[in-house]
Amino acid sequence: MNYILKNENAIYYECGYSSDNALYIKLGAEAFFLTDSRYKIEAEQSVIDAEVIIVRDLYKKANKILKKSKIKKLNYDPKEWSIFAFEKLTNNLEIKLHSKPDFSHKKRIIKRFEEIETLTIASQLGAEAFDFFADMVRSDGFHRDEYSLTYMAKTALSEYGKYELSFDPIVAVNANASKPHAMPTAKILEKKDLLLVDAGLKYKRYCSDRTRTVYANKNFSFDTEQKFKNKKIQKAYDTVLKAHDNAIEKARTGMKAKEVDALTRNIIDKAGFGKYFVHSTGHGVGLDIHEMPYISSKSNTIIEDGMVYTIEPGIYIPDEFGIRIEDMVAMIDGRAIVL
Amino acid sequence: MNYILKNENAIYYECGYSSDNALYIKLGAEAFFLTDSRYKIEAEQSVIDAEVIIVRDLYKKANKILKKSKIKKLNYDPKEWSIFAFEKLTNNLEIKLHSKPDFSHKKRIIKRFEEIETLTIASQLGAEAFDFFADMVRSDGFHRDEYSLTYMAKTALSEYGKYELSFDPIVAVNANASKPHAMPTAKILEKKDLLLVDAGLKYKRYCSDRTRTVYANKNFSFDTEQKFKNKKIQKAYDTVLKAHDNAIEKARTGMKAKEVDALTRNIIDKAGFGKYFVHSTGHGVGLDIHEMPYISSKSNTIIEDGMVYTIEPGIYIPDEFGIRIEDMVAMIDGRAIVL
Repeated sequence: MNYILKNENAIYYECGYSSDNALYIKLGAEAFFLTDSRYKIEAEQSVIDAEVIIVRDLYKKANKILKKSKIKKLNYDPKEWSIFAFEKLTNNLEIKLHSKPDFSHKKRIIKRFEEIETLTIASQLGAEAFDFFADMVRSDGFHRDEYSLTYMAKTALSEYGKYELSFDPIVAVNANASKPHAMPTAKILEKKDLLLVDAGLKYKRYCSDRTRTVYANKNFSFDTEQKFKNKKIQKAYDTVLKAHDNAIEKARTGMKAKEVDALTRNIIDKAGFGKYFVHSTGHGVGLDIHEMPYISSKSNTIIEDGMVYTIEPGIYIPDEFGIRIEDMVAMIDGRAIVL
Repeated sequence: MNYILKNENAIYYECGYSSDNALYIKLGAEAFFLTDSRYKIEAEQSVIDAEVIIVRDLYKKANKILKKSKIKKLNYDPKEWSIFAFEKLTNNLEIKLHSKPDFSHKKRIIKRFEEIETLTIASQLGAEAFDFFADMVRSDGFHRDEYSLTYMAKTALSEYGKYELSFDPIVAVNANASKPHAMPTAKILEKKDLLLVDAGLKYKRYCSDRTRTVYANKNFSFDTEQKFKNKKIQKAYDTVLKAHDNAIEKARTGMKAKEVDALTRNIIDKAGFGKYFVHSTGHGVGLDIHEMPYISSKSNTIIEDGMVYTIEPGIYIPDEFGIRIEDMVAMIDGRAIVL
């Protein structure tokens, strides 16, 4: 198969290196990695199984390479290409261009053994960072607003800049946690508030992703065992935890993704919170924070060994509170193992 | 003119609000702002002179709006659109689609008075943050590596998360500063090293941008007056500063951008460092960190009142050191005023 890739993570997956200005072209047995002179040294040291080409105008050069080749058909992902760049790439090209949305993501749905190892380390570093963040909040986080706490979470997750983040952390107090994608506000964290934290870091480019919701008394931790004073919150919390544990326990290879989704959704429905669980059960994680498989109520994707995804049920009562508990799992020997 | 915009900053410029999932459609006197339910409250409070439409699939809805309208021609920027999104937008549309690269940037090249005020505040906050960073480095930055110093710069520039950054700061020591786009390394900052810092923050979405290169003794500051022990470094430094000051003093409206570029380049050439000044003199700054005008040796753009751009000459001696001094200027009453 002949194909061209533009997305940084898609390219990294092919040849073990990438940059924010790169192209990867695979023409039968030949492969080319194109980038600009800023990345020359790193590229020449790190690219595997591809010819490194340092050039100012990547699209023009790629166009030349394609014209010189004898290929008849080239696959590309229409989500990766702006119209502008694609016109430069395909200028006067007599090759059949075949649109294949998400084709790198589809390739990456089953993780290799080394990828699962890297994701395991990422997830464990992420869990340690949550503990570090809990230390910070207990000693200096109360009476601070969500802006300041979000920055504190970035400091903890990145370990003072050592790691990149998978995404901007969500740190939400009480009613603000009722928005699944809460943005920080001026809301102040006081003792005994509800605190929701959704955050992850990157280890060797692979993402971690984790959410905890806690009763933030002075000795709180990010364990899943939590006692809230408010009975409605506790009922919702226990329901989300039960849904989370049920999916991890009962997910099996061979199931459809929607059957895994049902493992959380049925429990939340039965407890009467169904209409407050407003998103899917989870999503794949890898080089990108959102990958395949999507664990939604509509997905017929068959779950297979080697897939890595999140289990993250939630209950969101508008203007009151939100609960979400999230872990990453890998399908190994037929079952879901928490990373 | 009828047009559609997808870029977050381009949309903000039109209607005073935007989000990371938004479209703006201008059809004669009518205007529409489309976003999803996460941004409903903010959008309804903030969007000016456009109908706010909350919808799940923005492209499908935009397609419907365009079909219902009686327009014959629609302008779009091919750099903003992925092939995938554009195909959804234009599905079965009988409207002439007119590709206009950079048309929002072209509109924004002359800043309004309020924009120059906002950019002035951004630049002044940026300068204060440099002083704050100098405090941090003097008290706790020596013997730290560039990774840690970069994180410290992020803390200072963002004022502990209060402001967003214009871009990831560049913090480079000695030879690493010889790469114009240096990435952080394990290199440790010791007293009397050369330290280059290029950083900016956003104030009300507008970017600041500043670079200083200093002799990092224990009392250093980010003033432009610097004394290096090494004569070659001092000569290069004095040359860059002279080039920087010369351009600020002599830039005039009515000049071509390449004439402004020559105001720095000629001085560096004459001092014998010409081949080590490997980039343009500057770039426009506004909602985006890189905007028009580009102050390069090839640009025939006429400089006009209201343009805001950087003056940032540099000298980069490979494997030895790099010097860059950068300020933002606004063209006001025919001259360049440092913001």
